[in-house]
Amino acid sequence: MDTLPLSKAFTLIEPGPVVLVTTHDGQRDNVMTITWTMALGFSASFAITTGPWNHSYAALQKTKECVIALPTVDMLDIAVGVGTCSGREVDKFEKFGLTHVQARHVRAPLIEQCLANIECQVTDIIEAHNIVVLQGVAVWFDSDRKEKRLLHAIGDGTFVADGRKFDRKKMMRSKLPNGL
Amino acid sequence: MDTLPLSKAFTLIEPGPVVLVTTHDGQRDNVMTITWTMALGFSASFAITTGPWNHSYAALQKTKECVIALPTVDMLDIAVGVGTCSGREVDKFEKFGLTHVQARHVRAPLIEQCLANIECQVTDIIEAHNIVVLQGVAVWFDSDRKEKRLLHAIGDGTFVADGRKFDRKKMMRSKLPNGL
Repeated sequence: MDTLPLSKAFTLIEPGPVVLVTTHDGQRDNVMTITWTMALGFSASFAITTGPWNHSYAALQKTKECVIALPTVDMLDIAVGVGTCSGREVDKFEKFGLTHVQARHVRAPLIEQCLANIECQVTDIIEAHNIVVLQGVAVWFDSDRKEKRLLHAIGDGTFVADGRKFDRKKMMRSKLPNGL
Repeated sequence: MDTLPLSKAFTLIEPGPVVLVTTHDGQRDNVMTITWTMALGFSASFAITTGPWNHSYAALQKTKECVIALPTVDMLDIAVGVGTCSGREVDKFEKFGLTHVQARHVRAPLIEQCLANIECQVTDIIEAHNIVVLQGVAVWFDSDRKEKRLLHAIGDGTFVADGRKFDRKKMMRSKLPNGL
């Protein structure tokens, strides 16, 4: 995995992919599937919707750290599997054959199998809306990986993969931050 | 356009599509392109990231109403066009040939050309993070429309359309709300 500039982190979340969120609660690693995410600007800040119904939430609250990892279409059944069992009962890394990789700034692990990993600090929790605000502090990207299509959850148990790409950089120039 | 049950509203936002957000400021309609959105649960509540840099923000603050409209892949250049000019200077409905349709519960208009429209009330504005919290109050869906592929913005001026679909309803059953 190579590092990517933090200024590109929002481009991983803006398209709305299914993500895996890893935490480390002081004793062991855990991972949950999150499909409710949002970019909060161009500076690697993000929001996710989660709450006490997710076992990982306690670790997020306590450690104020996590990693957002991006699975690709070939990892669909892992993402669904991770999302339908609880770290309260199983070691999901073991169960789904995910490889822990040590992060640089946080104790939550990167996932080797994922296309990208964003190390994050929790900067705010808005309990009234179950919104957790994250600040990315490092980005990793596996450019050698052939499969780069991300997944999008519909919410009814179906998913859609990235399809055809369109370039509108010229039209968008005035709206893009420098360097993109 | 047909109505859809409110319980399905989150399935329109969860996949992370590019959306158009319409407002009515008391004098005229306006529309902006928003790519930073998030479902806040299964009950038609959503978050969008926006702020004073968008002309529509003043109308959102004042009227506490909007419509989230979903353009499909054939509307890419409309979405990009709407996102790269300001309602301060132009009538974007006229400029991009969008047809206003009267909504049922809000003064902001539906957009006839879009696949779906969600009438929303602003329930909270979290200024510290530029998050606007919305509650959907009605959903419209054009089931006659042939093109249903949504768009996802990468954030660097490129876009990706919905591609291959996958059904994991069986695996997801335990996690889905009733009726989906």
